[in-house]
Amino acid sequence: MKVISDVGPCAILGLGLIGGSIARDLAVRNVRVFGFDTDAQTLSAARRARVISRVVDESLEQLREARMVILAVPVDAAADLLTRAAPFLGNATLITDVGSTKGAIVARAQALGLGAKFVGSHPLAGDHRSGWAASRRALFLRAKVFVCPTRTSLPATIKLAHAFWRSLGALPVDLTAKAHDAELAYTSHLPHLLSAALARTLSRANHPRSALGAGGRDATRLASSSPEMWSAIVAANGPNLTRALDAYLKELRQLRKAASRGDAVAIHELFTATTAWAGPAPHQKT
Amino acid sequence: MKVISDVGPCAILGLGLIGGSIARDLAVRNVRVFGFDTDAQTLSAARRARVISRVVDESLEQLREARMVILAVPVDAAADLLTRAAPFLGNATLITDVGSTKGAIVARAQALGLGAKFVGSHPLAGDHRSGWAASRRALFLRAKVFVCPTRTSLPATIKLAHAFWRSLGALPVDLTAKAHDAELAYTSHLPHLLSAALARTLSRANHPRSALGAGGRDATRLASSSPEMWSAIVAANGPNLTRALDAYLKELRQLRKAASRGDAVAIHELFTATTAWAGPAPHQKT
Repeated sequence: MKVISDVGPCAILGLGLIGGSIARDLAVRNVRVFGFDTDAQTLSAARRARVISRVVDESLEQLREARMVILAVPVDAAADLLTRAAPFLGNATLITDVGSTKGAIVARAQALGLGAKFVGSHPLAGDHRSGWAASRRALFLRAKVFVCPTRTSLPATIKLAHAFWRSLGALPVDLTAKAHDAELAYTSHLPHLLSAALARTLSRANHPRSALGAGGRDATRLASSSPEMWSAIVAANGPNLTRALDAYLKELRQLRKAASRGDAVAIHELFTATTAWAGPAPHQKT
Repeated sequence: MKVISDVGPCAILGLGLIGGSIARDLAVRNVRVFGFDTDAQTLSAARRARVISRVVDESLEQLREARMVILAVPVDAAADLLTRAAPFLGNATLITDVGSTKGAIVARAQALGLGAKFVGSHPLAGDHRSGWAASRRALFLRAKVFVCPTRTSLPATIKLAHAFWRSLGALPVDLTAKAHDAELAYTSHLPHLLSAALARTLSRANHPRSALGAGGRDATRLASSSPEMWSAIVAANGPNLTRALDAYLKELRQLRKAASRGDAVAIHELFTATTAWAGPAPHQKT
């Protein structure tokens, strides 16, 4: 393959922020894009925008002609959709997904006998927005993408997954599904849960979002993410996330103790270590 | 007064992000600005930039000629600095500060017999940066500024404080010091503490900041704030902050319970209430 369009048609199952953005990027690279979505208006919009050239309907049989198949539905729907799609994937050379947890989907691909042609993917390109309306070109430019093989992924499959993501400007990084889910519990799912807990606290105490300064708005930005997508992620990664949360609670109790005593020296010490991790704040040039 | 320069010279004690930015704004409005700072390099830089026309030295006696005096040092230093400045404030018509907690400074002004000419101020314009190097013009444009009177602030003093902040483009809002500190514990100090606890958790688990996606970076942005400034704020507002923190811990334990069970339905319910508070996510136009 010299360019990604040489591989053949690509079917994208789920045209939300991630799936829709992949579709837009592939369309401008002359890849024939097939689209599946449970929302008829999304399908119409994607056709009108000339992003998808063919609709994959509920039968999924149009997948037979696809050479690449990307699952881009919430993580609680992906494994079942892959099961339904499996009978039609004989022609595919790359099957992947974009979910924020990798253990379940990689295991299901293996169980379905799709291990050789499947690798899991997780592009770090989402934000608090969602849906086709939020999708856009170049979303993956310089974005890290975790690529998680099954036990039997062919080297050619992994190579093609890398080439696929690189063609969208992304930076693929190999990681096992297990290591991925443990790491993302800390780096992504934990921040999300904390942001939600803060939003709930402020809401109950009758402090509207408009009362926050820039810092508070940053800290609660994730709270406006899709509840559907995120409740599925949290449930799927429950054990890892609970461990991360317990580590966090330990830190928070230490800070609470110092704050409740008004112990500025102890607080200063706790904050200084934090600043070292966070790195120096960017300063405006004078 | 028609314009702020009619009031007379303004002394700014502390030329960090907030004090330095006030100084810059006043200088371009033809106010004579006197500057005090414990850092000699900051004073030189502010003179070279023609922002301050006169240095207030450690004796503070130059304050005698100031008509407006703004304390812009960390909250644990402000009350003592006001005490030292008090003998030289006979010519002042407005004395105010910019700290993130208001109870202690308002009480000290009252105790020093400065109640009539003092009001506390707190502009919601800071961010995680600090120091003269981060100061800039127009920092207060459309920023909310809490204005907290003493028991004896003169109506003319409150009116002048409003005029002062409006001249910088800010939006003054009256609030008692007590109500201010209770509210800010939730809307500003709590988010800060949570961000620090998250940074500590990630640091201990060996996840560098570069491993985070956009959401995690947002959630930890406050962790790079000045430890000096923030440990003083947390210590000063300890009791209010502890109450806010306990409310937060209650929410977090509820989310932890649902996550540890992998209970997607319960998590979805908790997240949905959150989304309602956070408001709909902004969608990119297609």
